[in-house]
Amino acid sequence: MKVKVGINGYGTIGKRACTAIGLQDDMEIVGVTKTRPTYEAKMANELGIPLYASGSEGSAPFKAAGIDTAGTLEDLLSKVDIIVDCTPGGVGADYKEVYAKAGVKAIFQGGEDHGTAGVSFNSTANYQESWGMQFSRVVSCNTTGLLRTLFPLDKEVGIQSVYATLIRRGADPGDSKSGPINAIEPSLKLPTHHGPDVQSIMPWLDIHTMAVKVPTTLMHLHTVVVKFKRNVATEEVLAVWEKAPRLCMVNGKEGIKSSAQIMEYARDLARSRGDLFEIAVWKDGVKTVGDTLYYYQAVHQESDVVPEIVDCIRSMCKLEKDAAKSVQKTNSAMGIRF
Amino acid sequence: MKVKVGINGYGTIGKRACTAIGLQDDMEIVGVTKTRPTYEAKMANELGIPLYASGSEGSAPFKAAGIDTAGTLEDLLSKVDIIVDCTPGGVGADYKEVYAKAGVKAIFQGGEDHGTAGVSFNSTANYQESWGMQFSRVVSCNTTGLLRTLFPLDKEVGIQSVYATLIRRGADPGDSKSGPINAIEPSLKLPTHHGPDVQSIMPWLDIHTMAVKVPTTLMHLHTVVVKFKRNVATEEVLAVWEKAPRLCMVNGKEGIKSSAQIMEYARDLARSRGDLFEIAVWKDGVKTVGDTLYYYQAVHQESDVVPEIVDCIRSMCKLEKDAAKSVQKTNSAMGIRF
Amino acid sequence: MKVKVGINGYGTIGKRACTAIGLQDDMEIVGVTKTRPTYEAKMANELGIPLYASGSEGSAPFKAAGIDTAGTLEDLLSKVDIIVDCTPGGVGADYKEVYAKAGVKAIFQGGEDHGTAGVSFNSTANYQESWGMQFSRVVSCNTTGLLRTLFPLDKEVGIQSVYATLIRRGADPGDSKSGPINAIEPSLKLPTHHGPDVQSIMPWLDIHTMAVKVPTTLMHLHTVVVKFKRNVATEEVLAVWEKAPRLCMVNGKEGIKSSAQIMEYARDLARSRGDLFEIAVWKDGVKTVGDTLYYYQAVHQESDVVPEIVDCIRSMCKLEKDAAKSVQKTNSAMGIRF
Amino acid sequence: MKVKVGINGYGTIGKRACTAIGLQDDMEIVGVTKTRPTYEAKMANELGIPLYASGSEGSAPFKAAGIDTAGTLEDLLSKVDIIVDCTPGGVGADYKEVYAKAGVKAIFQGGEDHGTAGVSFNSTANYQESWGMQFSRVVSCNTTGLLRTLFPLDKEVGIQSVYATLIRRGADPGDSKSGPINAIEPSLKLPTHHGPDVQSIMPWLDIHTMAVKVPTTLMHLHTVVVKFKRNVATEEVLAVWEKAPRLCMVNGKEGIKSSAQIMEYARDLARSRGDLFEIAVWKDGVKTVGDTLYYYQAVHQESDVVPEIVDCIRSMCKLEKDAAKSVQKTNSAMGIRF
Repeated sequence: MKVKVGINGYGTIGKRACTAIGLQDDMEIVGVTKTRPTYEAKMANELGIPLYASGSEGSAPFKAAGIDTAGTLEDLLSKVDIIVDCTPGGVGADYKEVYAKAGVKAIFQGGEDHGTAGVSFNSTANYQESWGMQFSRVVSCNTTGLLRTLFPLDKEVGIQSVYATLIRRGADPGDSKSGPINAIEPSLKLPTHHGPDVQSIMPWLDIHTMAVKVPTTLMHLHTVVVKFKRNVATEEVLAVWEKAPRLCMVNGKEGIKSSAQIMEYARDLARSRGDLFEIAVWKDGVKTVGDTLYYYQAVHQESDVVPEIVDCIRSMCKLEKDAAKSVQKTNSAMGIRF
Repeated sequence: MKVKVGINGYGTIGKRACTAIGLQDDMEIVGVTKTRPTYEAKMANELGIPLYASGSEGSAPFKAAGIDTAGTLEDLLSKVDIIVDCTPGGVGADYKEVYAKAGVKAIFQGGEDHGTAGVSFNSTANYQESWGMQFSRVVSCNTTGLLRTLFPLDKEVGIQSVYATLIRRGADPGDSKSGPINAIEPSLKLPTHHGPDVQSIMPWLDIHTMAVKVPTTLMHLHTVVVKFKRNVATEEVLAVWEKAPRLCMVNGKEGIKSSAQIMEYARDLARSRGDLFEIAVWKDGVKTVGDTLYYYQAVHQESDVVPEIVDCIRSMCKLEKDAAKSVQKTNSAMGIRF
Repeated sequence: MKVKVGINGYGTIGKRACTAIGLQDDMEIVGVTKTRPTYEAKMANELGIPLYASGSEGSAPFKAAGIDTAGTLEDLLSKVDIIVDCTPGGVGADYKEVYAKAGVKAIFQGGEDHGTAGVSFNSTANYQESWGMQFSRVVSCNTTGLLRTLFPLDKEVGIQSVYATLIRRGADPGDSKSGPINAIEPSLKLPTHHGPDVQSIMPWLDIHTMAVKVPTTLMHLHTVVVKFKRNVATEEVLAVWEKAPRLCMVNGKEGIKSSAQIMEYARDLARSRGDLFEIAVWKDGVKTVGDTLYYYQAVHQESDVVPEIVDCIRSMCKLEKDAAKSVQKTNSAMGIRF
Repeated sequence: MKVKVGINGYGTIGKRACTAIGLQDDMEIVGVTKTRPTYEAKMANELGIPLYASGSEGSAPFKAAGIDTAGTLEDLLSKVDIIVDCTPGGVGADYKEVYAKAGVKAIFQGGEDHGTAGVSFNSTANYQESWGMQFSRVVSCNTTGLLRTLFPLDKEVGIQSVYATLIRRGADPGDSKSGPINAIEPSLKLPTHHGPDVQSIMPWLDIHTMAVKVPTTLMHLHTVVVKFKRNVATEEVLAVWEKAPRLCMVNGKEGIKSSAQIMEYARDLARSRGDLFEIAVWKDGVKTVGDTLYYYQAVHQESDVVPEIVDCIRSMCKLEKDAAKSVQKTNSAMGIRF
């Protein structure tokens, strides 16, 4: 008996969650929602994915555009065990009551506050904390990226402090409206919310973050300085990450000089949509000096949280008790090798 | 008995030709070459594609980087019926003699002059002209794009003159070295070579082209004005294109406003590397006034020539006499629906 | 006795008009308006330019930000002979009645329709048509650019038809909000409004325009094909432009390869804000073949209309009867050499 | 009697140094060099600045392009007291012997190693160290930026450690060749050379730097975390910077959200070329928590070192003993208010 999953919001994350869930053998997609009759709605029709209208005008605009719908969000909620909220940041919180009223479990994205669900999720760091819960929140792409590298380091070596700068993409690849075209824009509220967001899962971590937005669409990139509690060799760091899930080492000397070549490499990997579910760390950009580690990591903002969403469903719906086994199962189904 | 194909240059076009040929049932990949031990060479190893070293230092740098090679370009040439030259523009001509000496057929890319092969190729316009030939040249991505829309219009309606501006991408997605970052750069040699390149296949066509380079990586975009020999309705133009192969209509009103959403749509189509082998034409950006047609088309420079390469192999190796049947066969294997 | 000028909207065009008018000996700036207390409002204070609050909350938000205001728009209108409307596109029309009621002359920008003023203005093409008028409209930056090169050619040689593509900047240099970051976006309504806008001044001209938006901030660039009524030599075209005002020839072979080097050159010219009031034409990108001319021109969207605004004031306020003399006077004051 | 100054390399820095030096009353420009007859060489002619040919072909290519030269680099060296080397990074070192042989003083730029001159220069931090020296090196734009904010903080408050990330522009505004168009590229050699470069002037400072390159042309932006030796209030930091030279506070709430609005503001300031010689710090992006300070600063890479070059000449040529007086004199001549 598969867990029945609905997706509210068939956009950047929603369509990826849909594909990933469809690859698992213990869960199935019942339907997805869309507010307007865009090409993505049309594509859902072509792929045979039941589409539900969630806009204020219901199915009328879809009908006018020749797109079939199977009902409204309410109809979808009546058929699912769990809904994955993939609405735009901040909108998810407004739906919480709707989900609660429908008596379905719900996963929120990192665009919502920790308080919305009361518990935040990362597959490696705290899989158990969402066990059987009605609500949980998969942390944002950037927080997921920081947790993937920092949690294992803290566990294996012991971290004193972290200083990270997040260089964020200005817009996603499919967005032609947002800028900047030629500027760097800092997040003036300091320190930025990214540190506290990591602390929603690692509350003991001393982490300081700053962030800027730049004119690129491909990936976020983090510069990270870690102060350990003791001296550490570069090799020790690499050995820790060797065993950590969903990390992928890339090398400048093999021609992977920037986020451009990482995404080129990802396209060659033949995953759906050319996605990179792993966090990419430059192996020849990792360096320790005494107790200080410097490294660069790149985050594919469109997809790194997708396997975490799958794991989160498993934890919330009590499908698999062991975190490592869920990660393994998800990875295997999605073709994640690392 | 499948035709044995080698690929000289496993880069942007080479790796796509490799994937596409691997999907056909009447041809097979014997091996590919690479000059340096990059991540793409490593990937060839991982995918089990025999890799041959074509750089001046042979296999030594590959060995040093832990990458296996199966020999040199000469070794590869001794095993194939036909080689697809995917070396950088202008380099292919230098190899012609090597291919001739090895007694293999060779396909050149649009970066070479028409004179290099003596015959140029487009699946729809002149499939027969490469029949049994030792050398042929698949015209460039832009020329292929122009032929896809213009040839059917000329055949069905009759074209008087064409005025086209090519707005070219500054670099491919995997290239982080080339600019411009913030400029528009015109091709000062006028009229540009694109018109004559179209004439290498449609010598009778009166076509005038200009070109600029802009800071984007996704696609080229063409603005085209066609003067017909008679008045034509918009619907008639759309009807001609409806029947033409490898064209794909997109709609601004469905949210496809720019090349960004076209490539997003292509990624959703789940082809290899998120490619769009078709030429995209904005349906709600097609307009006729009297005898004059205006339209915009977008060209995925990384992939639109790939199915043409497959067809060209079929024509040169006498695998299929009928152009339409080859196109159909290639499309079907590659998942091209239009 | 100088003509008293006010500027409604101290933004990209407004602040430039303010500077340019301040350099003339037959007109003077009485004040400028701003809706919100931005750094530009602060700068007006620092420069000693009387600032009037035009937002719905009046001077309160300015006071709160420590910025002095001299009153409201109504106060400003009571002190001027003519107001230059530099509000955002489409907003100007809403102000027409306000200006009419205040009994002042008003100049609108190209963001408004021709019908708003009833007469459109270009210094060279139709200076006389605004003579003594209460309202006039200085056509947009792109239309001004096309008129500067086409009007003289038509007058001296005789134009049959024009085919132009406008490659537009996505945002101005000081705008970090608008995109696209990595896309080309066509103007789907065809043919675009630019042709008819040129016809608001040259109604007899057969002109066909298409347009795209690209990720750059510096300049618009036009590709233009002109069909003349007779064969013309490249030298003849250059000779016509040699005598035409506010055109500036640049050369690729001197290192001016793109809009980037044009604006670098402009900065070296030591005009205010690094502006280029002239239309830049690539001299080694001008070519005639029989009766057909091909050329590229670049338009500094922030500033090319500014000297036209000055001339328009002179025509509307009957300060100078002769167009050429006004152009000469404006150029001389602004340091325009061409 | 004015100090006679020559400039070797009339490019981005060279032409700005030329303008700035020309504004001082105790030094004068004797001439500038250029290797090729570009538009910048032509502009030197137009501005009446003596131009010397420094390329291997001498004055011949200039003559061919109709550009006047006054001799070669050797001729220029024979006429000056001091030469400002503004050749591309790494090239300056090759010229050291030439300058030594000619018996002239020389200033190198930050593209050369500290060892080239043996002493590095910053107006505020170590003006005296270049007193009377034959060679000195004005540190790079980024290092100058870091020194402007860090040196006063260390002097007044006492710094424990600094963690800075440099988000660098991919190309200068006048460069249309370099990328990336759509990528973020890390500097893999860690920690980057920027920390040690700051230490060439503040050898006692514990500073850790990382760096990435992004697709923008306007400015570099630094994210900086400072650990002080004691707790510090935000106001105390602002008070220190209030008195520090060549810093300029900007405010997000006044609409200066990014490097785009900073440079727009700079253009409004009406300096030559729209330059910003000051380091811009976001006032509402400065925050202390206990002993930790976070701030963002933006560096106009084309111009921030220019006033430092002027001061360095004064120190090396013993024109003014007091650093503060030289800074004051330079600022006053160049219109620097902060």
